[in-house]
Amino acid sequence: MSIAHPYLMFLGDAPDQLAAKTAQGVAHWRPEWCVGQLRMPGCKADLKLPDMTLEQAKAAGVKTIIVGVANRGGLIGESWTGVLKQALEMGMDLASGLHNRLVDVPALAETARKLGRNLFDVRHPTRDFAVGTGKKRKGKRMLTVGTDCSIGKMYTALALEKEMRARGMKADFRATGQTGIFIAGDGVSIDAVVSDFMSGAVEWICPENEADHWDLVEGQGSLFHASYAGVTLGLIHGAQPDALVMCHEPQRPHMRGLPHYQLPDLQTCIDANLAAARLTNPAVKLAGFSFNTSALDGAAAERALKECSQKFGLPAVDPVRTGVGPLVDALARF
Amino acid sequence: MSIAHPYLMFLGDAPDQLAAKTAQGVAHWRPEWCVGQLRMPGCKADLKLPDMTLEQAKAAGVKTIIVGVANRGGLIGESWTGVLKQALEMGMDLASGLHNRLVDVPALAETARKLGRNLFDVRHPTRDFAVGTGKKRKGKRMLTVGTDCSIGKMYTALALEKEMRARGMKADFRATGQTGIFIAGDGVSIDAVVSDFMSGAVEWICPENEADHWDLVEGQGSLFHASYAGVTLGLIHGAQPDALVMCHEPQRPHMRGLPHYQLPDLQTCIDANLAAARLTNPAVKLAGFSFNTSALDGAAAERALKECSQKFGLPAVDPVRTGVGPLVDALARF
Repeated sequence: MSIAHPYLMFLGDAPDQLAAKTAQGVAHWRPEWCVGQLRMPGCKADLKLPDMTLEQAKAAGVKTIIVGVANRGGLIGESWTGVLKQALEMGMDLASGLHNRLVDVPALAETARKLGRNLFDVRHPTRDFAVGTGKKRKGKRMLTVGTDCSIGKMYTALALEKEMRARGMKADFRATGQTGIFIAGDGVSIDAVVSDFMSGAVEWICPENEADHWDLVEGQGSLFHASYAGVTLGLIHGAQPDALVMCHEPQRPHMRGLPHYQLPDLQTCIDANLAAARLTNPAVKLAGFSFNTSALDGAAAERALKECSQKFGLPAVDPVRTGVGPLVDALARF
Repeated sequence: MSIAHPYLMFLGDAPDQLAAKTAQGVAHWRPEWCVGQLRMPGCKADLKLPDMTLEQAKAAGVKTIIVGVANRGGLIGESWTGVLKQALEMGMDLASGLHNRLVDVPALAETARKLGRNLFDVRHPTRDFAVGTGKKRKGKRMLTVGTDCSIGKMYTALALEKEMRARGMKADFRATGQTGIFIAGDGVSIDAVVSDFMSGAVEWICPENEADHWDLVEGQGSLFHASYAGVTLGLIHGAQPDALVMCHEPQRPHMRGLPHYQLPDLQTCIDANLAAARLTNPAVKLAGFSFNTSALDGAAAERALKECSQKFGLPAVDPVRTGVGPLVDALARF
């Protein structure tokens, strides 16, 4: 799988801005790939990209239509099929991050097959993976881990890629979820892999590389999330990270989706993640912290980062407020 | 899924006894369900069950033919299709633990559909699972964990079931792998579940129950196996065990399939498993140890068990040599 860009962001009849969360992430991190948006009547989302018809998109060189919205139910809307089919007929590919598949919409599957176009259902792995081996690979790897789900692991890995590349370092973001895959152009939605092959799939995502090359692997879930911790552990073992970056949101009231579970304290979470990671890389170290302090005012955010940094003797950043420079300084010393 | 018994064990043209390992496990634990075996020309395996034709099996009341062998390659042999199809036509179901599926053999799929017979591919989940919730359920649960794969976790759980039932305790073995599923008649092959749903599938396997009922959940893998630890963690969280039994083989030279990985020491392995299990059941305790001492002579085995028991102050048994009585004594006090 390798999704061709530039992209046209298809927003369909998204009921609100939140429904376009994936599309927004892609537009934020790959503005140079996202040349426009296509909104159907009733669409309540807006990426602040130029509105384009399919004809205009084609003329602008678009290679792939990104279905970056969920309708109510997370499905491909029936009213979308006509537009999406037309896009295929005009020579563009389709890529979707939804649970149901483009390939299961007969009109789209048939048209794509007839015309030799690609349908990417990025939540669904399209290849088989081997079982993980745990064998040491060359190259350096950073994995974002966290106290919870949806706490900045993708954002942090992408911010690290951007900063490292700006400094001339060799670095690649490695995507493990659907939004990340649109941003990277490839990757594997690791929570959709059959469990026996989780660590093997991650080994495939971040293979052997040059000794001074950094793979910046997008973390998933949390070792302390009762629903998804197994996915997190498979990811940790497959990535065999040299460095972990711990992601956290100081004001989060409870584990996401589990009001009966509290967040772990940072020290407990660090210890558990390092212990797990040591299995496939005994030299793993914590590089620092990435906080989402959006619920705090400026002074409180600064205080939270400073306290964390002093307590653990490691850099603590908020990628949005402060940038990730201090984390890259730390990684550069690895 | 619920596989009807009695069973006829189909051994096909198994190249050696090892190829019939699954069938052997079923015959050992459910002798009352396994009324005979069917061996084709060239079969080198033998379960010491009466050899039966399909006609004899039918007359003996067989409900399901268990395809309990792997040919070279782990596939359904082409030469088997005729016999298996005939079994369907005679009114019996088929169940297989192989990687490729009975439902993908057109002659079998078509015959089963036409006649309303069941094809069970127990390695492949046939239903969808919800994401795990981590919510506390009534009833008691024991999970076998281990220093490695294939180290006695299924055997121990089954031995506990047998001993508990003999004492009149309420107890059910809960199967998480293909051999266990044939033995239990149902269950979920947990390493074949999509990773997002691992802990949810385990919650489904061992649901709420009476306060004095024990679910004896078959463990898989090991938190220290670089290929499969994520599966193990999903299983631990989904089972929310009250009690762990640690399975170990003192003479094992290295992690199964990974000659570059040593086994963890027992204390490290206990600490990691208890820490993981505490997330969904803070009251979890280690009940004791189950060793496979088959590589040791009687005196050495006795010494290994005694040393372990004294060191940790908990019962240590070999289910084959000593039985699991002391473990059940410990569990009965939970």
